Amino acid sequence: MSNVIDSPIRNGVDTATLFATLDAVKGNNEIAKFQFRATNKWVSGTHNQSTIHGFYGAMQEMQHAAPHTGEADHPAVLVGGDNGPTPVEYVLHALAACLTAGIANIAAARSINLTSVESTVEGDIDLLGILGLGRGEVRNGFEGIKVSFKLEGDDADKLRQVVEQSTARSAVYDVITNGVPVSIEVATA
Amino acid sequence: MSNVIDSPIRNGVDTATLFATLDAVKGNNEIAKFQFRATNKWVSGTHNQSTIHGFYGAMQEMQHAAPHTGEADHPAVLVGGDNGPTPVEYVLHALAACLTAGIANIAAARSINLTSVESTVEGDIDLLGILGLGRGEVRNGFEGIKVSFKLEGDDADKLRQVVEQSTARSAVYDVITNGVPVSIEVATA
Repeated sequence: MSNVIDSPIRNGVDTATLFATLDAVKGNNEIAKFQFRATNKWVSGTHNQSTIHGFYGAMQEMQHAAPHTGEADHPAVLVGGDNGPTPVEYVLHALAACLTAGIANIAAARSINLTSVESTVEGDIDLLGILGLGRGEVRNGFEGIKVSFKLEGDDADKLRQVVEQSTARSAVYDVITNGVPVSIEVATA
Repeated sequence: MSNVIDSPIRNGVDTATLFATLDAVKGNNEIAKFQFRATNKWVSGTHNQSTIHGFYGAMQEMQHAAPHTGEADHPAVLVGGDNGPTPVEYVLHALAACLTAGIANIAAARSINLTSVESTVEGDIDLLGILGLGRGEVRNGFEGIKVSFKLEGDDADKLRQVVEQSTARSAVYDVITNGVPVSIEVATA
């Protein structure tokens, strides 16, 4: 990687701090071990709310500057109260957000100026699966997801390479395309 | 499935409408084909914002009652502005939200009263992957996710079975544990 930096801030990314962080992690891999968390509370019906605040990283317990809350619900057509996006829509948001953050970081690290990044994420799902009507032939989740980016900036070819690299290094893209083992514990009262 | 309903509303779920919806879908499987969407716009650095509004389902274009927006960012320790949860934290929220909505629906369909559902979701991730320092041995996404539920309601054994069934029918659990193909298109200007 070339560390030639002509301006420490590009695309809103503090590249000096970004490269310093990379150097710190190279010096001590323990810094890179993170645990992220969400706590969720049922409200009523399909409506529930998550709070995201604390996490572990850089060898210590940390917190976001403020707790973030997010509502989730089903729309009326799916017998919900429509008090928030559906859980599956949050997955699409997470994918767009992860790829877009990576695009900004990688473009900055490569001294490429971005002026605009927009995307639309579409996920096709056949609800026969979750409704238990699929006779074992229909999965519960998305059959496929399509992400369409519109980028404006320095150089079209370089911008395409930035998207490729962001995809190759995206946490959420990896989670969604490759899957992750999930364990579930239940305590009852 | 037993359709003996002693009260149409249980756990905030309109079970009469839920069973009517199931019957409608059984009568015409096309109703179950949905497409969910998110549009995302880069703000600056790792900060971006998604809007969730329109979707396709029940054989027509539909909209949530109101557009929902969600901010995403990296925390300061990851060279961001901390203007929202990280993309990976949204994945944890989506998982908790999907399982919890399913618990409420399935408990209602089985005439089981819930009084409280809380959960904590923890995802372990080694950032050597996304930082490109993992020498191909560290994945970009979560190594594993743990969901811990605390349920209160009618009957501990039945509540555990409800969680099992919600897991077996969860869209987000399927997406995260089994993976989904993702295609990415790029237009530049």
